[in-house]
Amino acid sequence: MSIRTPICDTLGIEHPIILGGMMGISDGILTAAVSNAGGLGTLSSATFGVDGTREQMTKLNELTDKPYSVNLPLFHPMVPDLIKLLPEYNVKIVTTSAGNPAKYVGILKEMGIYVIHVVSSVRTALKAEDAGVDAIVAEGSDSGGKVARDEVPTISLIPQVIEQVNIPVIAAGGMATGRGLLASLAMGAQAVQLGTRFIASDEAPVHQNWKQVLIDSGDSATAIACKTSSPTRLVKNEFFDELDALDEPGKTAMDFMPKQNEGSMRIPDDSDGSRGNYIAGTGTGLVREVKPVADIVREIIEEAEAGMAVMRQAFV
Amino acid sequence: MSIRTPICDTLGIEHPIILGGMMGISDGILTAAVSNAGGLGTLSSATFGVDGTREQMTKLNELTDKPYSVNLPLFHPMVPDLIKLLPEYNVKIVTTSAGNPAKYVGILKEMGIYVIHVVSSVRTALKAEDAGVDAIVAEGSDSGGKVARDEVPTISLIPQVIEQVNIPVIAAGGMATGRGLLASLAMGAQAVQLGTRFIASDEAPVHQNWKQVLIDSGDSATAIACKTSSPTRLVKNEFFDELDALDEPGKTAMDFMPKQNEGSMRIPDDSDGSRGNYIAGTGTGLVREVKPVADIVREIIEEAEAGMAVMRQAFV
Repeated sequence: MSIRTPICDTLGIEHPIILGGMMGISDGILTAAVSNAGGLGTLSSATFGVDGTREQMTKLNELTDKPYSVNLPLFHPMVPDLIKLLPEYNVKIVTTSAGNPAKYVGILKEMGIYVIHVVSSVRTALKAEDAGVDAIVAEGSDSGGKVARDEVPTISLIPQVIEQVNIPVIAAGGMATGRGLLASLAMGAQAVQLGTRFIASDEAPVHQNWKQVLIDSGDSATAIACKTSSPTRLVKNEFFDELDALDEPGKTAMDFMPKQNEGSMRIPDDSDGSRGNYIAGTGTGLVREVKPVADIVREIIEEAEAGMAVMRQAFV
Repeated sequence: MSIRTPICDTLGIEHPIILGGMMGISDGILTAAVSNAGGLGTLSSATFGVDGTREQMTKLNELTDKPYSVNLPLFHPMVPDLIKLLPEYNVKIVTTSAGNPAKYVGILKEMGIYVIHVVSSVRTALKAEDAGVDAIVAEGSDSGGKVARDEVPTISLIPQVIEQVNIPVIAAGGMATGRGLLASLAMGAQAVQLGTRFIASDEAPVHQNWKQVLIDSGDSATAIACKTSSPTRLVKNEFFDELDALDEPGKTAMDFMPKQNEGSMRIPDDSDGSRGNYIAGTGTGLVREVKPVADIVREIIEEAEAGMAVMRQAFV
């Protein structure tokens, strides 16, 4: 038995599970691990720089011959240079985010690339569809890291987006397990995209303290800091308060980078999880153990299949 | 074809759809309408006063012979008097909320009453199970009205509660349609509880302006006001800002009542929806039309069945 939606065939993947392109975390190794497990890995790019992205792509192509995506954060000035790398590394799928896809969707599709765009509202979903993207990730405000100022939670966002757009929808935000995958399918999505769950994997290139924080975090461990200028979901601790204290009208994401880097640098010495910068979605309460990516993917599928067996009994 | 989970048999209802016991809104007429449509109506109580609750129960018993529940907001000093009414009106199901159920669960169960308790976190779910309640409603911070200070959204709350408790779970918060019911079942819940969707029904005893606001509201129409002292989700408008401006440490829900009443009194004259007190969950973006309750229930079931047919195709 397996779980296959139309987008699995389109993307050439075995399971409808997608790794979010997390800045600096979704590297060649983690991306390859998810793709090799039958999901779709998504390589982060700009954070690595152009040369760094080249290195990550080289590694990725060495580690897997399965499909993967490359994330392009559209606000970033490096995007045109990153796009030039794509044919060289034979990239077939790109996930655009954090900007208007209209500017780049034409050139990407001319290169034969399947374009997925990340949205956080009905309005941006319709705009992406109009721009001609092939599919969208609809990401609720339950997700980790940067979130939209207008907070639309996953449970309300996905059904609305499904009603309004005609291209395939991938659900993201606050999910980490097979019940999240099954809920995504129930709401009409064709796949689930996960970030936090894969941070707590053997392959993720983050310090063990971060993984431990995710394991220790309960249902209400995260909140959104910097709501006025650059809303960001992370674990509530001393660092959260320090970051949030810098929030003021007119600031942009770039203004918070030095402080966020400081919080990230603290992680190796932060054995009690109080002072580091721990990006996480609300699904962190579902993360119980650090495991190899292949085990995580298999368990998600198994849990979704078990959940489906129970659901079938309700339809009589 | 129909959708039946074990709690449907326990409660004696046809569809796994429950009306939330909304203060002042879930009256005898609306409660009877949901029960007559095959769901479980939940009568609000304390807001009506003891005599008013008596009147509502009389009307309810005249309008339906189907099962219904009565909501007891446990913080309210009137609760002991309301409990005395229950055997007189042959009440078989009670939904407790806003307090610790331990104090009353014994007496309610001695009366042969099935006790459902509303929780908003894993911690309160476990506490309710320990106290001996028969089932819980797990309500995410996506829901309308009073929400917990620790915001746990539905998409993350339900799977965690399902993992931790052994009694039946009813999912609530941010849902309004068949995809929400299906997502609830997918996450392991046995039913969905809806509030906002039923405010926009023919039978709901609220002014047409409120219903129209729900229809006009998009995906990001609501937010949580008074986060410091008494978090409350409602539609963002001028009234929202006025209410939020009163927020300060140490205040309780009671301190906001005069202002909330003022906002509710404005509704009949608030034709553009800018100045009234419009309680709503994030699912208001899914509300498109005011309809009879029976039509709403039927459409939810039909949409869930259609969604299930698509889901089945993914499991091969």
